[in-house]
Amino acid sequence: MTSIDRSDFLRAGAGLAGVALGGEVPPWTKELGAGIDAMPYGVPSTFEKNVVRRNVPWLTATTQSSVSFTPIADLDGIITPNGLCFVRDHGGTPEVDPRRHELMIHGLVDRPLVLSMEDIVRYPTISRIHFVECPANGGMEWKGAQMQGAQFTHGMIHCCEWTGVSLATLLADAGVKPQAKWMLAEGADAAAMTRSIPIEKATDDCIVAWSQNGERLRPENGYPLRLIVPGWQGNLNVKWLRRLKFGTDPWETREETSKYTDLMADGRARQFPWLLEAKSVVTYPCPEKPVRGKGFNEVTGLAWSGRGKVERVDVSFDGGVNWRVAALQAPVLSKALTRFRIPWQWNGETAYLQSRVIDETGYVQPTIAQLRKVRGTNAIYNKNAIQTWRVNPNATVDNVQIA
Amino acid sequence: MTSIDRSDFLRAGAGLAGVALGGEVPPWTKELGAGIDAMPYGVPSTFEKNVVRRNVPWLTATTQSSVSFTPIADLDGIITPNGLCFVRDHGGTPEVDPRRHELMIHGLVDRPLVLSMEDIVRYPTISRIHFVECPANGGMEWKGAQMQGAQFTHGMIHCCEWTGVSLATLLADAGVKPQAKWMLAEGADAAAMTRSIPIEKATDDCIVAWSQNGERLRPENGYPLRLIVPGWQGNLNVKWLRRLKFGTDPWETREETSKYTDLMADGRARQFPWLLEAKSVVTYPCPEKPVRGKGFNEVTGLAWSGRGKVERVDVSFDGGVNWRVAALQAPVLSKALTRFRIPWQWNGETAYLQSRVIDETGYVQPTIAQLRKVRGTNAIYNKNAIQTWRVNPNATVDNVQIA
Repeated sequence: MTSIDRSDFLRAGAGLAGVALGGEVPPWTKELGAGIDAMPYGVPSTFEKNVVRRNVPWLTATTQSSVSFTPIADLDGIITPNGLCFVRDHGGTPEVDPRRHELMIHGLVDRPLVLSMEDIVRYPTISRIHFVECPANGGMEWKGAQMQGAQFTHGMIHCCEWTGVSLATLLADAGVKPQAKWMLAEGADAAAMTRSIPIEKATDDCIVAWSQNGERLRPENGYPLRLIVPGWQGNLNVKWLRRLKFGTDPWETREETSKYTDLMADGRARQFPWLLEAKSVVTYPCPEKPVRGKGFNEVTGLAWSGRGKVERVDVSFDGGVNWRVAALQAPVLSKALTRFRIPWQWNGETAYLQSRVIDETGYVQPTIAQLRKVRGTNAIYNKNAIQTWRVNPNATVDNVQIA
Repeated sequence: MTSIDRSDFLRAGAGLAGVALGGEVPPWTKELGAGIDAMPYGVPSTFEKNVVRRNVPWLTATTQSSVSFTPIADLDGIITPNGLCFVRDHGGTPEVDPRRHELMIHGLVDRPLVLSMEDIVRYPTISRIHFVECPANGGMEWKGAQMQGAQFTHGMIHCCEWTGVSLATLLADAGVKPQAKWMLAEGADAAAMTRSIPIEKATDDCIVAWSQNGERLRPENGYPLRLIVPGWQGNLNVKWLRRLKFGTDPWETREETSKYTDLMADGRARQFPWLLEAKSVVTYPCPEKPVRGKGFNEVTGLAWSGRGKVERVDVSFDGGVNWRVAALQAPVLSKALTRFRIPWQWNGETAYLQSRVIDETGYVQPTIAQLRKVRGTNAIYNKNAIQTWRVNPNATVDNVQIA
């Protein structure tokens, strides 16, 4: 909290004092509440019924190959609760019976393995807090401001504590041959989602995970087993993981040829753009969350980088002319969401809010103009440009693009 | 993973290889799954229906003043998912309407405040990962081994990322007078739960929280507002927080006179035993989780301290004669659960598993004999003794006490 200007806030807070406590004792103080056995597995308050994942009906032809977005503007901190984690399915969410689920490891390995879930959970385990982001996050924004809401511009992301076995441990057990340069990961869903991953990443920091924020994975996030590929595109984090094959070359699957490539201005496609570059977004205020009033407002948001830790986040209130450094909430973890905050005195006039992250490698989040210069406007994926929210005098907030 | 003896594991893993992948393609690969709009708010797989909070019917006269326990043996990592966080209610779980909820700050303050939820969320915010533990956690064990399950011996604990306003920030705004030495915190539930907290703690690291693991608090965990008093007894973390009063002396409420005191051997009561001393428990294996088989097993569990960070966890397999140092999962956070792990080769014989935590202040978790020597056997609260699990030759695990 060191960078919060408390004295500014105290002036705003003064107006709150002196109100009399509403006379009547509320009903919930006068009557016993529900028994502790009422909810063996708890759910949110009915008053929070609008805090849900949402989809964009016109975006996809079916709801099975589609996406529902995390309501990031409603969330605090860095952990995404499991029930609100965005979902990107290619063949719908299957209901996999863990007693019948197996993981096969084969191809260029010394000892092919077929592991049941009971086998897999016997391995040594690790836990890591990492974000998972779909590279299409923000994809609708390439050609101009469109989506009115941080849920839709930046909500294809979540951040959970994942527990499983290090992929490197599994692979040491299978004995990957030196000539193996690529790994194919395949899902058990109806899309049989398949992606090629280079051996250097497979043996680095990947996790074969069965747990998400303490409990077993949710069905729509890969139950009972998924791959976590920290900092790389979400679709590589194959859900309902059933097969890992090792070979000398990539498999050139549908999802790395016709999809998940970047069509450049010259008509050529950029293939295998795995890394998720540094990105950030202001989640208050934003289109769903108008400014609460003049005077003190704590502006907050999320920043992340597929390269490692967030080093710094700058915030501008005038569309990128002047910048101030935001406070980062500890712990700042590698390849995890990082919460930033900065105090702001809103004078009631139009303002252009932007955030810009710099990661530990020195990478600076680009403007949309800088990004278009390199990538053109044909792309769908990997849009990590600075987002602009225009705060209007009536306190509403619009998604805009400025030159 | 540095302390895991990988070579031991690899010998155990060898037996897993060479099984043929079950011939038939499972139904979930042959048919499209559910659409992404099927679950705006997700729930666990139906195959995980036994992973729930549980209560002990004989323990309390009613279900409104009772407890349901976190299934800690089913969980991984350090984050407890919101739906499984233990619940200790004194008057049932109320359904509080946040539009009608107010927090009053009064007594020895310069400027009494009555704050709506809309007022409160305008304050500068902080997020912290902390455990909350009921001091009765383990209380059934004082007189001898009783409960067959880690859920019941140690499940009155959870660990979440809490977001709210620092209580110190709120109190600076109210202007607490120098003569104020105590704070009364009161809940809006039917029990009007009230506890006295010394001013030094109130102005230290407490949080007035509205969010838990990213989303708004669950009803049974204090929606829409609760107090977080890091490292101190759970009942001080007043749920449905509606009032903070400042005075010169403690209020001697029911919950700090007839309850939540420790009856000593000499008949006197120890009052205000707020601090939760360091404690740990093995969660695999344990009574609910028999040993999976001979050979390699990764023993794992949880450790915590109300004083700060966990410094070290030792594990014994022979009832406390010999000890080995366990690996701690990063990040190790202050007043948060810490996950420990240690490899074990089970030879199929009887074993007595124990864990012992040492915290950053040098405090060492005591044996039950050491604890009884100081506290006698009349106590209900604050039992943080070393737990013993007996592993039987048939792989089952019993809760036992050894001299």
